[in-house]
Amino acid sequence: MNPRLETLFARRSVRRYTDQPVAEEQVRDLLEAAMAAPSACARDPWEFIVLRDGEQRAKVASFLPNGPMLAQAPLGFVVCGDLERAHAGELSYLLQDCSAAIENLLLAAHSLGLGAVWLGVHPRQDRIDNLRGLFRLPASVLPVACVAVGHPAERPAPRTRYAAARVHTDRW
Amino acid sequence: MNPRLETLFARRSVRRYTDQPVAEEQVRDLLEAAMAAPSACARDPWEFIVLRDGEQRAKVASFLPNGPMLAQAPLGFVVCGDLERAHAGELSYLLQDCSAAIENLLLAAHSLGLGAVWLGVHPRQDRIDNLRGLFRLPASVLPVACVAVGHPAERPAPRTRYAAARVHTDRW
Repeated sequence: MNPRLETLFARRSVRRYTDQPVAEEQVRDLLEAAMAAPSACARDPWEFIVLRDGEQRAKVASFLPNGPMLAQAPLGFVVCGDLERAHAGELSYLLQDCSAAIENLLLAAHSLGLGAVWLGVHPRQDRIDNLRGLFRLPASVLPVACVAVGHPAERPAPRTRYAAARVHTDRW
Repeated sequence: MNPRLETLFARRSVRRYTDQPVAEEQVRDLLEAAMAAPSACARDPWEFIVLRDGEQRAKVASFLPNGPMLAQAPLGFVVCGDLERAHAGELSYLLQDCSAAIENLLLAAHSLGLGAVWLGVHPRQDRIDNLRGLFRLPASVLPVACVAVGHPAERPAPRTRYAAARVHTDRW
């Protein structure tokens, strides 16, 4: 693993956090990083719900089978996309754009000394419906995933999951 | 923009390249970085076709309306996902996982002093069909996007597209 790419290898899913709160400047940093991702035709269809309130976080966590850490984390995000703003109104571009933004957010968290984990929402209809109901989202706004963020209480080792079988050169 | 997040802000779409080839070690670095992305239930459904041969790159470029730079670039990728390996066989997870891997690949290119650009494929059926035909892809393998990579002949300035209107706190 090339040390110049250390951030990419050292970003790991972090699911346990200390009690230390996340500073407001860091929330802004994470959002700036997320919104530096590329998007199809630069339509930037993303929307971010920052979860600070403990009750709201607990409610969102209750919708996610793998999401209990969101109730313990000091900070969370619901990352949504607006189909009306996605390139050509296409769900595929919405998902691609929001996913690039989420990956940037996770990498930024790691670079700031925080830990984070991507919690799947789309395409699970119950999770989508619960989040739509809780936040009364506009009809065109689709939740894609949640992210839990905090100061890490575990430090998984850097890694790649490089698999030579997944690499083809010039032909399949 | 927090200087600790410089890589995320300085990664920009680079569409013009010098004639200098990309070293084989760097191709491996890019693939290791891409395959360090998170994926739903760690299913890693991605597949990477490395485009080295000029004729293959020119053919792929001809399928992409915004892709002529892929014929000039010394290196390209077709990033695909295998529906049979995606979590729950879901296209949504395939798109999310491959997009996180592509964003890692673009960030790695920047960190290595290279320039790269994401060229959309899915959900455009003509592009999907043309790539499937050229590479005779298995039925379950879906091309998501292409990436052109080279030594940059342009250096766009770092930026975020942070928009306060896209940020909501605890409620919509």
